Amino acid sequence: MSDDQELGITESKEYNTGEWYAEVVQKAGLANYGPEGMSGFIVTRPRAYAVWERIQSYLDGLFKETGVQNAYFPMFIPESYLEREKDIVEGFDPEVAWVTHAGRDELEERLAVRPTSESIIAPYLSRWVRSHRDLPLRVNQWASVVRWEATETKPFFRTKEFLWQEGHTAHATDEDAWDETLTRLDQYQSVFEDLLAIPVLRGAKPEHDKFPGADTTTTVEALMPDGKSVQSGTSHHLGTSFAEAFDITYTDEDEESQIAHTTSWGLSWRSMGALIMTHSDDQGLVLPPTVAPEQVVVVPIWQSDTKEKVLEYAEGITEELEEAGVRVELDDRDERNPGFKFNEWELKGVPVRFEIGPNEVDDDVITVVHRPDGESKEVDRENVAETVREEFDEVYAKLYAKAEDNLEENVREADSRADILGTIGQHGGYVKAPWCGDEECETEIKEQIAAEIVMVPLDDEEAEIHEGDSCAICDGDAVETAYFAKTY
Amino acid sequence: MSDDQELGITESKEYNTGEWYAEVVQKAGLANYGPEGMSGFIVTRPRAYAVWERIQSYLDGLFKETGVQNAYFPMFIPESYLEREKDIVEGFDPEVAWVTHAGRDELEERLAVRPTSESIIAPYLSRWVRSHRDLPLRVNQWASVVRWEATETKPFFRTKEFLWQEGHTAHATDEDAWDETLTRLDQYQSVFEDLLAIPVLRGAKPEHDKFPGADTTTTVEALMPDGKSVQSGTSHHLGTSFAEAFDITYTDEDEESQIAHTTSWGLSWRSMGALIMTHSDDQGLVLPPTVAPEQVVVVPIWQSDTKEKVLEYAEGITEELEEAGVRVELDDRDERNPGFKFNEWELKGVPVRFEIGPNEVDDDVITVVHRPDGESKEVDRENVAETVREEFDEVYAKLYAKAEDNLEENVREADSRADILGTIGQHGGYVKAPWCGDEECETEIKEQIAAEIVMVPLDDEEAEIHEGDSCAICDGDAVETAYFAKTY
Repeated sequence: MSDDQELGITESKEYNTGEWYAEVVQKAGLANYGPEGMSGFIVTRPRAYAVWERIQSYLDGLFKETGVQNAYFPMFIPESYLEREKDIVEGFDPEVAWVTHAGRDELEERLAVRPTSESIIAPYLSRWVRSHRDLPLRVNQWASVVRWEATETKPFFRTKEFLWQEGHTAHATDEDAWDETLTRLDQYQSVFEDLLAIPVLRGAKPEHDKFPGADTTTTVEALMPDGKSVQSGTSHHLGTSFAEAFDITYTDEDEESQIAHTTSWGLSWRSMGALIMTHSDDQGLVLPPTVAPEQVVVVPIWQSDTKEKVLEYAEGITEELEEAGVRVELDDRDERNPGFKFNEWELKGVPVRFEIGPNEVDDDVITVVHRPDGESKEVDRENVAETVREEFDEVYAKLYAKAEDNLEENVREADSRADILGTIGQHGGYVKAPWCGDEECETEIKEQIAAEIVMVPLDDEEAEIHEGDSCAICDGDAVETAYFAKTY
Repeated sequence: MSDDQELGITESKEYNTGEWYAEVVQKAGLANYGPEGMSGFIVTRPRAYAVWERIQSYLDGLFKETGVQNAYFPMFIPESYLEREKDIVEGFDPEVAWVTHAGRDELEERLAVRPTSESIIAPYLSRWVRSHRDLPLRVNQWASVVRWEATETKPFFRTKEFLWQEGHTAHATDEDAWDETLTRLDQYQSVFEDLLAIPVLRGAKPEHDKFPGADTTTTVEALMPDGKSVQSGTSHHLGTSFAEAFDITYTDEDEESQIAHTTSWGLSWRSMGALIMTHSDDQGLVLPPTVAPEQVVVVPIWQSDTKEKVLEYAEGITEELEEAGVRVELDDRDERNPGFKFNEWELKGVPVRFEIGPNEVDDDVITVVHRPDGESKEVDRENVAETVREEFDEVYAKLYAKAEDNLEENVREADSRADILGTIGQHGGYVKAPWCGDEECETEIKEQIAAEIVMVPLDDEEAEIHEGDSCAICDGDAVETAYFAKTY
């Protein structure tokens, strides 16, 4: 809308990633910052929200195919509930927004605006689970949560309120809970790889960086073009800690009472931040056709004597695409020239452009331009609704390949502290190194270059530790391979 | 789940509507009450949430067909923003939940948990609207809001937090804003009449009962079986009051600055309360097939020697329905007898039951039972996926007709105070009467029998006032026809 159209992107993705990202978000009409007095909050504009709806729809479909039901729990949690699981209260207390008054009255007990909902969902799981026949029990909610972090706002990456889904499940056995944890991690991986054109790495967070109260926190990590890792979806095997704190028990087949095993898992609009950051460029937003609000923009190019035939041809193509379910926009504005339109739709991230001039009409063809790389080609007018799907696949493949190259080039090995520091300092990206499992060894790296252990790979043979391997930092016995990186 | 299955419904809809409703909500697994310390809040269980998702999906589809885009705004509103439109602050202040602390710090300015979002959306409309080309601008958000009402909790009808959508639009002219107001009212009417099988009345709220700051508040009202009216969706023509308070202006075609005209409109999960209340009965929940989580339950009835063939036949039918996109559940539990299953699925509101015994298998037929009235018939096994759609239409028509009869029988006329009081006292329902437009005349009725003016009809010739008509209460000049009713 008007106030964003004044200028194209002026910052450089390569040299000034932070400012460039903020500019893309603003000028492509994705978000505005919150009002005065509410720093850290953003307004999610329709263009971004439409992308979020596609992420929701895709993931919600996967959930429903695999036994998850949606529900909705209160947005407030009584302080006494939050305190019932001690790790949760320690983990989130510093970031909680507190409701203390309602109308003109002070509340007897203050209420936390949910930072995450384990503490309010677990008591209901406890009521709903009675017998082994009630298990597994899986509920999910799409909601917003509030975490009052003091750090600088970065739309979709770091905001005090954010949109996400949080799933909560109860199971009869530890093994079932672990399977559930990995099923959801797989689905998060699919969101990134099959919908957002971003390859990810899978792993477990180190002990000291787990979700409060969890046995294991698993994560998918995406590498951004500036060499930092984004934690993009986490799935927690909670063991029995919440079941014990909130009395989630069931009667097994022998009529014995058993404690349940629970999981929780969440994917937030960080995924949208990673999407914008990964593919966009100095011309503005780049989106894969899978999630783009408009997949194709048709730009007619006419002189006064060709206007009628060009427009008619362009309208016919637009209608045919619409009927085939393609999200298409015909930009037939009189008051703007084609160059202006090209720039504007590039800024807004439309992945495929159709250019239609008198020559295209005469030859019964369409000039197709791919947003990501400007590749241009002529295709037949006939069967355009089929052709365009192929173009979408090509664009998707290009975006994925570029992100994959970036990832593959930026996983390096190191076997000493100096090597870790030097490699991350020089290249960014991931550095994998044998590690003793001790938080202190990570602390040394963190203090020097603000890199941390983002994960320990799951089921990765390459990452296996062998007898005699020693920790790259302290030289003690190595127990696992850690991936170090700077993070968002 | 387990704790709801102990008993069927024990209360009577006719004699004890309130308790009956609460029991249906609990035992059909729709909602639980909030935790201790959070009275007034509810937990929306999957069965109810699935209905809400269908309402959302239907209405969101209508919105998107008519130029509405979804967006998301912060859940908090700074107090100073809330105060900028004086009617809003007066209207909502007594019901606002206030966030005063974040982490360990007290906030400089306290934040309202949104009771409605005009005050946070209007400043952004102001930024986004520059030129007449930006109008109309329409955004909607699906969200929860908090209003700290002290009255008794009634799930979906009256809760301190509720789910809804709120649309906010800006227009060039007053006429455009009024058209928008009515477009959304039409869509709310469609939700009730075309999706929920509930006929509604349309009208405007009296002056003294408008949305704070609105020029006109329009409403669709549904009559519940106990004779009370439910305000089921409201659409507000806000005139220029918000545009003036938040500076929403645009440049017209002559480059002159003009003030915009705005609207807002909301439909909440009250629609789901009205749905449950209208159709359900002393056996439990009744839902139309349009929104039922399961549209058909298939119950096989076997002896040990017929089990194999009955089950195979039932499975074949289930698969065929699933492939045709019907939401079907095969209840092949061994540990429950058919009678138990019938009761359970009746309680849960499945609109169509297929009973399959050995006779059905031998005759290649299905016994179909309609939930609302127990009507039972045999249909051919062949083409079952088509037949079942006809059954759905029949069930829908039955539910609608019953609700329509109730509405038509319960709109009465009155021309004196005694008549209004007596008629509502005896029958409930709506009483239409000529009215002078003065709030005091309503107050008299309200004080005596807690009935109020729920609306003044829009575009209803029957409700036209003629010269010389006098107010049923004060005998002054009548200016409009008012509908009095008790309300939820």
